[in-house]
Amino acid sequence: MTFAPTTPTTVNDLAWLGEHAASRLPRDLQLTADGPLVATIDAEVARLRTLAAGAPGSLAVRDLPSARNEGTDAAPLDELARAGAEAYALRTRGEHLELIGAGDRGLLYGFYAVTLGLTGATGGEWRIHAPAQSIRMLDHWDNMSVHPVMGQVERGYAGGSLFFDNGELREDLTRVEHYARLLASIGINRVALNNVNVHALEATLLTTRLPQVERLAEIFRAQGISVLLSVSFNAPIVLGGLETSDPLDAEVQDWWSAAADAVYARIPDFGGFVVKADSEGQPGPFACGRDHADGANLLARALAPHRGEVFWRAFVYDHHQDWRDRSTDRARAAHDHFSPLDGRFDDNVIVQVKHGPLDFQTREAVSPVIGAMPRTRLAVELQVTQEYTGQQKHVCYLAPWWSENLSFPFGPEGSPTVAQIVAGTTERPGGVVAVSNVGADEFWTGHPLAQANLFALGRLAWGPGLAPERILEEWIEASFGADPLVGEVLNELMAHSWQLYESYTAPLGVGFMVRPGHHYGPDVDGYEYTPWGTYHFADRDGIGVDRTVATGTGFIGLYPEPWASLYESLETCPDELLLFFHHVPYTHRLHSGKTVIQHIYDSRADGYERVLALRPRWEQLDGRVPAALHERVTTLLQEQERSAEEWRDQLRAYFFRASGIADETGRRIW
Amino acid sequence: MTFAPTTPTTVNDLAWLGEHAASRLPRDLQLTADGPLVATIDAEVARLRTLAAGAPGSLAVRDLPSARNEGTDAAPLDELARAGAEAYALRTRGEHLELIGAGDRGLLYGFYAVTLGLTGATGGEWRIHAPAQSIRMLDHWDNMSVHPVMGQVERGYAGGSLFFDNGELREDLTRVEHYARLLASIGINRVALNNVNVHALEATLLTTRLPQVERLAEIFRAQGISVLLSVSFNAPIVLGGLETSDPLDAEVQDWWSAAADAVYARIPDFGGFVVKADSEGQPGPFACGRDHADGANLLARALAPHRGEVFWRAFVYDHHQDWRDRSTDRARAAHDHFSPLDGRFDDNVIVQVKHGPLDFQTREAVSPVIGAMPRTRLAVELQVTQEYTGQQKHVCYLAPWWSENLSFPFGPEGSPTVAQIVAGTTERPGGVVAVSNVGADEFWTGHPLAQANLFALGRLAWGPGLAPERILEEWIEASFGADPLVGEVLNELMAHSWQLYESYTAPLGVGFMVRPGHHYGPDVDGYEYTPWGTYHFADRDGIGVDRTVATGTGFIGLYPEPWASLYESLETCPDELLLFFHHVPYTHRLHSGKTVIQHIYDSRADGYERVLALRPRWEQLDGRVPAALHERVTTLLQEQERSAEEWRDQLRAYFFRASGIADETGRRIW
Repeated sequence: MTFAPTTPTTVNDLAWLGEHAASRLPRDLQLTADGPLVATIDAEVARLRTLAAGAPGSLAVRDLPSARNEGTDAAPLDELARAGAEAYALRTRGEHLELIGAGDRGLLYGFYAVTLGLTGATGGEWRIHAPAQSIRMLDHWDNMSVHPVMGQVERGYAGGSLFFDNGELREDLTRVEHYARLLASIGINRVALNNVNVHALEATLLTTRLPQVERLAEIFRAQGISVLLSVSFNAPIVLGGLETSDPLDAEVQDWWSAAADAVYARIPDFGGFVVKADSEGQPGPFACGRDHADGANLLARALAPHRGEVFWRAFVYDHHQDWRDRSTDRARAAHDHFSPLDGRFDDNVIVQVKHGPLDFQTREAVSPVIGAMPRTRLAVELQVTQEYTGQQKHVCYLAPWWSENLSFPFGPEGSPTVAQIVAGTTERPGGVVAVSNVGADEFWTGHPLAQANLFALGRLAWGPGLAPERILEEWIEASFGADPLVGEVLNELMAHSWQLYESYTAPLGVGFMVRPGHHYGPDVDGYEYTPWGTYHFADRDGIGVDRTVATGTGFIGLYPEPWASLYESLETCPDELLLFFHHVPYTHRLHSGKTVIQHIYDSRADGYERVLALRPRWEQLDGRVPAALHERVTTLLQEQERSAEEWRDQLRAYFFRASGIADETGRRIW
Repeated sequence: MTFAPTTPTTVNDLAWLGEHAASRLPRDLQLTADGPLVATIDAEVARLRTLAAGAPGSLAVRDLPSARNEGTDAAPLDELARAGAEAYALRTRGEHLELIGAGDRGLLYGFYAVTLGLTGATGGEWRIHAPAQSIRMLDHWDNMSVHPVMGQVERGYAGGSLFFDNGELREDLTRVEHYARLLASIGINRVALNNVNVHALEATLLTTRLPQVERLAEIFRAQGISVLLSVSFNAPIVLGGLETSDPLDAEVQDWWSAAADAVYARIPDFGGFVVKADSEGQPGPFACGRDHADGANLLARALAPHRGEVFWRAFVYDHHQDWRDRSTDRARAAHDHFSPLDGRFDDNVIVQVKHGPLDFQTREAVSPVIGAMPRTRLAVELQVTQEYTGQQKHVCYLAPWWSENLSFPFGPEGSPTVAQIVAGTTERPGGVVAVSNVGADEFWTGHPLAQANLFALGRLAWGPGLAPERILEEWIEASFGADPLVGEVLNELMAHSWQLYESYTAPLGVGFMVRPGHHYGPDVDGYEYTPWGTYHFADRDGIGVDRTVATGTGFIGLYPEPWASLYESLETCPDELLLFFHHVPYTHRLHSGKTVIQHIYDSRADGYERVLALRPRWEQLDGRVPAALHERVTTLLQEQERSAEEWRDQLRAYFFRASGIADETGRRIW
């Protein structure tokens, strides 16, 4: 399915910043503030006023100096100042709201929060709102032209790139302006513009095509967002004509410094570089006999004079693994490569770690790297684009999955969680990075309901403790208003859609089982005998990857207690990760009481039945949501039904052929 | 691997028409003949003389009128005349040869046969040589530009197209000239220039790009070869702007007549059209509610005034099959579609039938369509390009496979064979069509030893009774001369290479087990749950496709006796087709005495060991064959070793996981 780009003029493609948001903004609005983003707020108010008249009551927006001048109590203001420039304070008296921004971004975030109803319970007292994560960034995997294999947006399921078309920046950037305000409204403060797999054309964004980056930076700057570029570690060779990219080579260091200087001359608030090095064919420091600290620090030192940062991905593994070799475990790779380097990265390096040890699966364990680098700035990398979770053809609301990951404590109860660890300290902050799911599609995300994932990503990066179901309500109300039936149906379709998707796809944390290449739809053995290191080891007797310390790859030993013991033992290992950690017979009995094989049979059959229940519910919203949106979702629900049936039938058939064990419910196996 | 084109100037890329052929041509040559191809023979002699001095002795070449004038005995001349214009007569007296051509092509074929040493045992008596098959045709699956998925040559493994580059005819057609003489030298008389999957650009060869066809026709005409085009059944819509391609529509009929007239105005000896209709997404008569006789006759009637012919492919099946449905059998499809149409095709339609009921597998049964259409002109379609037989990376000499197929009798011993059936009658002749394996590669075929397949195809189309081992000797001597070690080593590498390839790939006739899309390398379940209709149905207990009448798809019932009974019974079904016809337990014992599972284990392990023996033998030819050719083959033998090991290990692992039965030899299973 390909989606045509449009300019954002209809209610469909205004996403959550349309008429429903506009009607929540108080009619009486006073803005007493200075700073570069005040004009943005002014323009937003004007834009929203064209969509709806607004709510009764008033909103007074002030910056800190104005608030002090006007005699607001010192205590909350001091607290607000300590919370950082992105924070805001809010006080409600009936229909009258007072908002104070600690800095430019704080003003803007507070304004959007009021508009979208994100401020939670309010009351007569001042309440300070500040983001938990300093880094709240989206990575675009956009190519400038259509890649023959990967398409324009790598792992993109929403049409072409918002930024680029036919190898150059788009002429009409109206939609980028709207995209920037959508991102700012959920607190995103950084955007990396191009694919981490940097091809020849995209490499030139750093040099000859820098003016194109500058234009995008201007648009994002207006919404408090800084831009970054993915760069090739071999840029000194590819772009600079040098013979090496060795981080210890003075010419290479000079080349990067000059390149950074040139960027900052045009874009003084440029965010920095994102680097995928020594990973899936991308060049890196290994070729020069250097390690990843050497590599990251090379770029960091070029950026440091400008306060730029390096986001260095920890996604490093051997993608030419021999499937015969059961001792090598891709899950260990990032930990093995990076944990020994803890403490060696410069202060402006952030090591960007995928949330799980494999690759954005529907279910996998938490990456042990997160807990293994206390002296390194970290960002956890999530994937909003639904590469392995239905590719924006299936409804799959991912916030519960991210929330579970972010709240995982590295140690006994009360230990720092993933969210707390990556947040870091005020001096050395980290955060959350996520791969965008947005493209030139008129609904932004292909599947209109996938907008909720983008929304939730921003919300969880702001407040990792926010409940996924509450975020879903926020998104529904901002996008569709207060129609109770709409809320009820969308909740029913979305709230548990991640678990639903899991129920009919790869079982019990084993992962993959997708068609190689495009990663959509079932192929149980698709990756089984490949060099990619992603195996299930199913045979006639059992299935799963033995990652125990006792008899397996030892991966479990990378976790602190109590996790190491909990995962190691079949008595305590959670069902949903059983096959991620253990190889067990099909007759192994889960904590649920079912055998593994019966679980495989039942979940896939039940999951499909539950999918079939979605479309009739959605039909009830005909006429209550925009018609084009309703039609798109209906079409995609049909595809979800088809695909879920295929998953059901292939997996049930495969595992019956393998195990020879009948489905005790007697349901048909093909 | 991609191969650069060159002009044919080195010994490597003259193939079998280089110095060794030149040195066999008698030094004293007298040519007493008229006709359009006499100039060609003159030019060939001149060209060959530049390569070598020639052999002692003499060759007198005459056409029939000259021979009669010079008083040659009437009896052999009359016999020669009856044998048709492509025949020639040869008489040898010591080192003195006399050659008489029955017509232009007969002259040319006789001349090349002497040059290449293809005339077999000679003696003092006249011997008449005539082709068994009137139609000896190569189909090129060349696109004019690089197709994003299929490349320039679909299923091509020898670089780009010889004819086209970058969407147009190549400017330098020197290599096409040489290719034409290579084809004529082995008796090929027709070439279809473009891919049967006709894309938009290639469709225009019929109209706006017809001058490009004309240029190619001139080159091939000089070697007695007529050219054909693959055309789209929807050409009246796509090129003509009509609203339908309905064969019964008068406008459509007129459009095709006009199109044919325009072609023949430029190319009076144009061969006709090749059509893939209602197959794998190509348009066809089904869309208009017509059948394939209607469709074929539509084109035939446009061509008939010009004596042109339609090659209508019988490769029609449902490529959106449901893998759950075990009653639908793709092997039946061509028979089910075409046998009811027997007798309804016009006289200038040749139904082109793949040799097996599936798709050019390493091993499959003979297509029952061949025996089911006695009132239809037929051509059997073979595949020289090694799509499923090693893709010109593995040594795989296919003549034994083709020979086995061509000599299959449709009925009891003595019944007409495939070769005899397709040969047809003088009035309604058929023949052999094959997909070319040639491209712009400097060795023509990627793997230099794959030249032997092209050579053998021509030889078997001429004489289906020729022994494959004899053809191999002819090719070796023509290409490499008489060095005994070269002959010995090449025989060892090639003579049984098809059986060797079979031994380490899909077992016992079950087919496929290749990576979807590119079809190279193992993937046991690659097509198992797909819509392509190519399944093995392996489970923990057994494997194979039940095509019996008693319990299966009934496909076996399409064969005449004794085959129907022989295939139906496990007692008599040949081992090599066992899994093509039957689903059996892994413990089923073959006629060989081994169980199916042990056969799978052993053949793959032994096959790999035999592959390892090839390269050391080939090393012995270092310095005895052209260096570049030696190096290319060495490189490819390494790839064959790698790939055969992968086949061995994946298949042994897959079937051990499935069956749980140990390899009784104790060899390691991964």
